[in-house]
Amino acid sequence: MSDLKKLFNPQSIAIVGASQERGKVGNVIAKNILELGYAGKVFLVNPKHEKLFEKKSYRSLTEITDKVDLAIVVLPSKIVVPIIREASERINLYTNSKNYNALKNKLGLTDIKEKIGVGVKNFVVVSAGFSETDEEGKARETELKKLAQEKGLNILGPNCLGFIIPKLKLNASFAGGLPKAGNISFVSQSGALAVAIMDIARKENIKFSNIISVGNKMQVDESEILEYLAQDGETKVIGMYLEGIKNGPKFIEVAQRVSMVKPIVIIKAGKNEKTQKAIASHTGALAGSADIMEAVFQKTGILRAENLEDFFALIEFISVAKPPKNNQVAVITNAGGLGVLTADAFNQKEIRLFDLNEKTKKELREFLPDESSVENPVDLLGDAMEDRYEKALQVLDAEKEIGSILCVLTSQDQTPVGKITDKIIEFKNKTDKLVATIFIGGERVEKSISKLRENDVPNFLFPDLAVKTINAYYNWSVNMSSIQNKELAINIERKNKVAEIIAVAKKEKRGALSFPEASRIMALYGIKTPSVINIGAKDILPKEIGFPVVMKVDSDKVLHKTDKQGVILNIKNQAELEKAHAQMQANFPGENLILQQMRSIKTELILGIKNDSIFGPIVVYGLGGIYTEVFKMVNFLVPPLNIQEIKNSLLQSKIKFLFAETRGQKAYNVQELAEILLGLSKLAQEALEIQELDINPLLVYNDNKEAVAIDVKIII
Amino acid sequence: MSDLKKLFNPQSIAIVGASQERGKVGNVIAKNILELGYAGKVFLVNPKHEKLFEKKSYRSLTEITDKVDLAIVVLPSKIVVPIIREASERINLYTNSKNYNALKNKLGLTDIKEKIGVGVKNFVVVSAGFSETDEEGKARETELKKLAQEKGLNILGPNCLGFIIPKLKLNASFAGGLPKAGNISFVSQSGALAVAIMDIARKENIKFSNIISVGNKMQVDESEILEYLAQDGETKVIGMYLEGIKNGPKFIEVAQRVSMVKPIVIIKAGKNEKTQKAIASHTGALAGSADIMEAVFQKTGILRAENLEDFFALIEFISVAKPPKNNQVAVITNAGGLGVLTADAFNQKEIRLFDLNEKTKKELREFLPDESSVENPVDLLGDAMEDRYEKALQVLDAEKEIGSILCVLTSQDQTPVGKITDKIIEFKNKTDKLVATIFIGGERVEKSISKLRENDVPNFLFPDLAVKTINAYYNWSVNMSSIQNKELAINIERKNKVAEIIAVAKKEKRGALSFPEASRIMALYGIKTPSVINIGAKDILPKEIGFPVVMKVDSDKVLHKTDKQGVILNIKNQAELEKAHAQMQANFPGENLILQQMRSIKTELILGIKNDSIFGPIVVYGLGGIYTEVFKMVNFLVPPLNIQEIKNSLLQSKIKFLFAETRGQKAYNVQELAEILLGLSKLAQEALEIQELDINPLLVYNDNKEAVAIDVKIII
Repeated sequence: MSDLKKLFNPQSIAIVGASQERGKVGNVIAKNILELGYAGKVFLVNPKHEKLFEKKSYRSLTEITDKVDLAIVVLPSKIVVPIIREASERINLYTNSKNYNALKNKLGLTDIKEKIGVGVKNFVVVSAGFSETDEEGKARETELKKLAQEKGLNILGPNCLGFIIPKLKLNASFAGGLPKAGNISFVSQSGALAVAIMDIARKENIKFSNIISVGNKMQVDESEILEYLAQDGETKVIGMYLEGIKNGPKFIEVAQRVSMVKPIVIIKAGKNEKTQKAIASHTGALAGSADIMEAVFQKTGILRAENLEDFFALIEFISVAKPPKNNQVAVITNAGGLGVLTADAFNQKEIRLFDLNEKTKKELREFLPDESSVENPVDLLGDAMEDRYEKALQVLDAEKEIGSILCVLTSQDQTPVGKITDKIIEFKNKTDKLVATIFIGGERVEKSISKLRENDVPNFLFPDLAVKTINAYYNWSVNMSSIQNKELAINIERKNKVAEIIAVAKKEKRGALSFPEASRIMALYGIKTPSVINIGAKDILPKEIGFPVVMKVDSDKVLHKTDKQGVILNIKNQAELEKAHAQMQANFPGENLILQQMRSIKTELILGIKNDSIFGPIVVYGLGGIYTEVFKMVNFLVPPLNIQEIKNSLLQSKIKFLFAETRGQKAYNVQELAEILLGLSKLAQEALEIQELDINPLLVYNDNKEAVAIDVKIII
Repeated sequence: MSDLKKLFNPQSIAIVGASQERGKVGNVIAKNILELGYAGKVFLVNPKHEKLFEKKSYRSLTEITDKVDLAIVVLPSKIVVPIIREASERINLYTNSKNYNALKNKLGLTDIKEKIGVGVKNFVVVSAGFSETDEEGKARETELKKLAQEKGLNILGPNCLGFIIPKLKLNASFAGGLPKAGNISFVSQSGALAVAIMDIARKENIKFSNIISVGNKMQVDESEILEYLAQDGETKVIGMYLEGIKNGPKFIEVAQRVSMVKPIVIIKAGKNEKTQKAIASHTGALAGSADIMEAVFQKTGILRAENLEDFFALIEFISVAKPPKNNQVAVITNAGGLGVLTADAFNQKEIRLFDLNEKTKKELREFLPDESSVENPVDLLGDAMEDRYEKALQVLDAEKEIGSILCVLTSQDQTPVGKITDKIIEFKNKTDKLVATIFIGGERVEKSISKLRENDVPNFLFPDLAVKTINAYYNWSVNMSSIQNKELAINIERKNKVAEIIAVAKKEKRGALSFPEASRIMALYGIKTPSVINIGAKDILPKEIGFPVVMKVDSDKVLHKTDKQGVILNIKNQAELEKAHAQMQANFPGENLILQQMRSIKTELILGIKNDSIFGPIVVYGLGGIYTEVFKMVNFLVPPLNIQEIKNSLLQSKIKFLFAETRGQKAYNVQELAEILLGLSKLAQEALEIQELDINPLLVYNDNKEAVAIDVKIII
């Protein structure tokens, strides 16, 4: 991984393409860096001028004899590569130049070559005209990337807005203004969205540690930035707007690690076909399938925001709040109706309305009017003054099992909003519970909401958003403790055996393995398949087999056998067998045929491996049978996996009902299925040649019979 | 129905319990009515004072000799009934009083009795202390309701905030202030929420025709108010906050009728158990099951808001926008990323991103830079000035098939937000398409958003909310045209036959019908059941039956037979039959046993009638089998119904996959199932004695075999 610390904490910056001409990007960036209070050294580079902003204007980066931590490049795309090459090689140029001695003395070195790092290593390429455009642009980006690797450079962009570090008063971007310094890092694949967010932040008093526009993510991608921000002491929460993910496996590994340290909130664009189209024309990134993305987010503990509103709410909330210590919540309100709506919002959430103890209810009753409700939500009534809020909070604070308290308020004519606000702030400062507010109204509550925010009490404009947001933060805190880094433990011997089997098929130019081949692979991973009698493509039928049997065509040319009448079930005697054989030979002349024993069906599952273009192999499992596509009761698992993780997934999956008694039906064996899925997961990691794998059906039983993979299709 | 016109448009108001003491409800109401510009006559009633607010204070309502259109009662709950009784009988008092002649002359009548209506007929009872409290309060409310019926009074409340008609400058409530006059009617079962909404309205410039707090809805309930608002010329959209519904069948009938004229947006509190608890202590209303409520809203064309935020968005949007003329939407944006997020929001919506014609794309390309996207969403790029917005709108206007245009904007440094705003307003005023905006940002867009609102261009702060809201309005406009009033056509002869069958069982004190009885009823409604052989409770078994058969216990004492081993399947011969018989007799001594022919199972459905405490009989249908409870693939139908409505429901239901070919499986007969459901729906209307009905399973086939109700359980 590249060391991004210098890039994002430069002590000296050169702006290549600085300009005094209004409206030019080079002008905005220069002004942002020069005028907003950045304390480091700034060098302006523009060969057309002697001076810019009353400072010396250098003809080129190579002319600067001082150390340059970061160069921001705002040049036509065509000359970006040569300029960066020159700058990165500056030291060499100078060793060959007339200034050699002067430079050597200036840098205090005996031999200039001993400090090769003095060449500029960190770049922000603002210029557009790379992979987001045409073939020419793509070629340019490839060249730039090669250069970066060759010279060990860190390049943010190209085609980006730049970045902003409010604490350093450094706005190294062409977005105007400087947000307040705080603990939110916002990373955006859309420059425009970053600008909009800064505008919203000003109004809502949202404070940032970093705002980073990643542009085309040529080299410094979301994973590298996550890694950097995990270590950034100023950052508490990382918010990201992503359109695509550059390197899936790396992202999974890094995100999982970073999630354990800091919450990552992501809003991912690209949910449907139409959207994919828009993305393709927006940046060069490919969006992954929504379901797989969801599984990756789940696995890595990332908080996925469904939309922009949720995104803002989450990053703002996490920036000021501590995680709830448990899932129990108390709600107090001065409006019964809003209490009800708040209670509604807990529907299908992990956080719950705490059932108040009798002691607490009694204590509440002591000071509340008779018409109040001392159930949770506690209704303090419309005429509640600050004392009712204060006392109710005190009483609830004593309930050790409550993790969070939500204070709902509407401003009735007599409501002392300011005084209640003060009591809530006071309470928040001395309790260990999470305290948040839902103040609903307009002018009457506006000032108090600002005051709450200034005092780090998160306020929500609506109950739903409050409950949804706290729920997500709670889930993160729970997930965080359960995430483990899984070792990618490859069994080399087994891997080689699989490779051999696949090699044979490849040599014969088959696109899929035969059932016996697939069975041998399954056996290596502990997955049982039925024994078969291979009839082949011949006319001779075996004798003395135990009826009933199933006849199937087994050929890489007939992949959807059931749909094509390539399976004949329940053959009960020799006569039926001969008839079936004749029929199969007529329908599939020259193709291989097999016989399996007919099995009783209890429950059919479908299992498989899908090779995702971004994240690599993904394990899929769900309910099988004729309505598989209709019910779509499917879940995803992202390798590497351990048995516990798989069991957890199964017990929360869409087929979780199988693992509990249902109306007198015995439960199915979760351990057995977990082991089969673990086998598949290992196979996925060990045999990257597998393009696609389907076990359909896997028959499972709840009467101690072993699960068996009736059909296994492996596409290579 | 009562005539609420006078109540909500009074030319004279008496405030009974008016007060000059600050903080008292009677003080706030008096000031609101006297000081905010109401032009009608106002009488203050308070026996403790001679004068109030420099006006005469009457000792009682009966002392006022003028006509009083509306009396607002702010008195201790105990004296509310006698005071209203007296006021409603005022005319009689006066005919017996010394003032008889004076009064007669004043009213210009020859005989005062000829105009009995002069007694006060319309009341707002603000006082609390009725059914929302204790038994005593409930009794008081019963008495008040009886009085209202007896004397033909209209009473809003009790336990309400009052109402506000901004156009009349009439604030007949104890909430402060007067919102701007507009076309939104807001009806609230929570007074506090009404106050909060008025506060938000001030800030957001939302304008109202009526704000009505319904309190306990003793007499004037949601249905009566809907009826009134349907006729109110000032109202374009009706928004309601409801915790419970008073009279379900009446509500269905009225809402269905009103929906065809005006959109009704409802936010209904009470989704889960916890919530139900909170409601019970909040008002006396009972909340219905969420699923049934959903079915009722669907049937009646009501727009259900999921939460407060959606509610505000919907009523605000509808108040200014016209319904989209179709489901095709175009999006233009100056930020690609936001274009993508907006496109995402169309996921699973009825409104769609329109596929732009080649001609349109060509026209867009003519003036847009190369890097722009001319796919929908159209990306005008971050440096777009007003001319690009203007031209893009012009080009899109020419596409006849586009119904709505969404303009997305973020304010980049160079963006002329004000000028773009003007172009959008200009465009909106001349196009027949729906135009809405999504301006994302803070200070930079604030003024323009206000300007958009002033010019009736709805703006949304986030893409999701915009798409969700437009989608809901579109759905209303489509539903509106499909809603038909269904005749409740009762077949008396059939009704009597059903009643006879049920009467027999009731006489025998059975809680459920026997299978033969249930079969006879099914036959009346065209639902086929299998023929049975009744064994009875005896030892003699029939001979010469066609095996295989099923033996079942048929008794109102064994309702969940399958769970209790009361069904023995697949009896193949006489020996098995005898064994089964012995087993059944042992398990269910003295209970009736029946035999049915064993049938092949293709697909099992479950059908039924549920008697909802609010809405009466509801028809339920869904997928049967052992996982019925797990999959919950169930839909609801609200009678009265016609065949087309049922077919539409089936084709959009959770079992819609049955009616299309799926992986070589033939489609099931939708007409057949619709007719069975129509039968059930008629039965539900004709036999109100039925508490519950289950057909489980109904076997359906896709090979021309007839559907058959294998088991029918009718609880009476």
